[in-house]
Amino acid sequence: LIRGDLSDVRRDGIFVRGEGDNFRVAKINCYNSTKEIGGCDLVIIAVKATSNSDLVDLVPPLLRERTMLLTLQNGLGNDEFLAEHFGAERVMGGLCFIALNRISRTEIERYAYGHVVLGEFGRASQPRTREVAAEINRAGVQCTVTEDLALERWRKLIWNIPFNGLSIVAGGIDTAAIVGDKDLRHATLALMDEVITAANKCGHVLPRDAWREHMERSEKMGPYKPSTLLDWEAGRPLEIEPMWGEPLRRAVAAGGQMPRTEIIYTLLKQLDKARQTQ
Amino acid sequence: LIRGDLSDVRRDGIFVRGEGDNFRVAKINCYNSTKEIGGCDLVIIAVKATSNSDLVDLVPPLLRERTMLLTLQNGLGNDEFLAEHFGAERVMGGLCFIALNRISRTEIERYAYGHVVLGEFGRASQPRTREVAAEINRAGVQCTVTEDLALERWRKLIWNIPFNGLSIVAGGIDTAAIVGDKDLRHATLALMDEVITAANKCGHVLPRDAWREHMERSEKMGPYKPSTLLDWEAGRPLEIEPMWGEPLRRAVAAGGQMPRTEIIYTLLKQLDKARQTQ
Repeated sequence: LIRGDLSDVRRDGIFVRGEGDNFRVAKINCYNSTKEIGGCDLVIIAVKATSNSDLVDLVPPLLRERTMLLTLQNGLGNDEFLAEHFGAERVMGGLCFIALNRISRTEIERYAYGHVVLGEFGRASQPRTREVAAEINRAGVQCTVTEDLALERWRKLIWNIPFNGLSIVAGGIDTAAIVGDKDLRHATLALMDEVITAANKCGHVLPRDAWREHMERSEKMGPYKPSTLLDWEAGRPLEIEPMWGEPLRRAVAAGGQMPRTEIIYTLLKQLDKARQTQ
Repeated sequence: LIRGDLSDVRRDGIFVRGEGDNFRVAKINCYNSTKEIGGCDLVIIAVKATSNSDLVDLVPPLLRERTMLLTLQNGLGNDEFLAEHFGAERVMGGLCFIALNRISRTEIERYAYGHVVLGEFGRASQPRTREVAAEINRAGVQCTVTEDLALERWRKLIWNIPFNGLSIVAGGIDTAAIVGDKDLRHATLALMDEVITAANKCGHVLPRDAWREHMERSEKMGPYKPSTLLDWEAGRPLEIEPMWGEPLRRAVAAGGQMPRTEIIYTLLKQLDKARQTQ
């Protein structure tokens, strides 16, 4: 399903370039309505979470009795949204540890190799989880299976909460600018520590040094613009609730605090609101 | 001493307008060097703290044996700076609870009546403190004396740390926009609470509800732009260290934390730095 750019993609395909091989996917099976697509074995959900309400109408034409719904969206709350509307047993979640940007309607720029982690919503992995992961690996993308999707979602937030947030509220800067500035780096580590503490408070046990792999990856990443910064620069809505709002609400509900995250959440909402009313 | 706008002020005087009487001070005794001014009884220091290093050369021509130095600057560290360079016994500090902006070289717009609180650096009030306060009262500005200048400086930060900070990092908004938004208001109260906790940690005992008078005043104030926001909009340097850096350092040195203040401090430094390198 491609809602906006269908004719461009049908005509040109998709170009992928950057780190690793440059290539073009010439012929893409794409459609502009889910009715046209019809029943599927697997539906991969990659819309911005700000469009989740559209899914209520978009998804039903795709559903057969055992159709799997795999959300690759960021943050917290998307699995629950799908479970509530289409049944928990359908829902799988995936985390994309990637560094790529869609730079035009038909071009994707890739800055580093990445990987995907798959899991089941609210239960351990199933035979189908491993089958889907194997399919993704066959397509050339490294994919592993987790027994605890919720834990991995929190683990990914260790990166997203500071980097996606600071990149916008610090005035539109990339990961290299954040990692390279003493104070922003300190703020990043403090935010990472907040996320780890909040996850633990919510019963998802992350080690105290879970920030380390994220910092090391960020240092190797070069000047990368987080997806939220690209959204901001392009005037698109920001995925504020799944990435900052929902983790904060869960931490507070569990008796925790995320003071730095809360400030960033508040600033992002204000910046987003001011832009929409311009 | 007027360094930049001397000829304008000599020609036009200063216009004061807004809340209360509009009036013009036609003849102002102003000079462009402190050597021209010579020895004084009282030197009122109203430069931006970012220009403090200039004072090392500017102040000495004004000093007689008993010359008083009264800093009306915001934040922490200015009293100490003067004490270190010119002797602690000379130093008095004043806090301006005002709502006014200099909107051009010769015009001042006033949004509300305000008052000034005077105190001695590092000691209780002296006969001279009350004499200076009486002089300011005679000039038509309500002025009271405090026995504890350091405490009052912290009390003023309860307002400046949230409002001056948020007005910039939330995208250039006035006090009414902050007070009127549920989340920004919540952030403001959380920041106020941080300041009160930090002050207490540093031995300056403020009541837990010391935020209340500040919020009430802000609600009456209307759409006021804090001085730091005006500096930001005009491309002038920001008084970041006295208003955020120094309180944070003192709180941390006393074993406290100001996580929200720290994020705002970091963002302001980054925004200021990015602008200077543009």
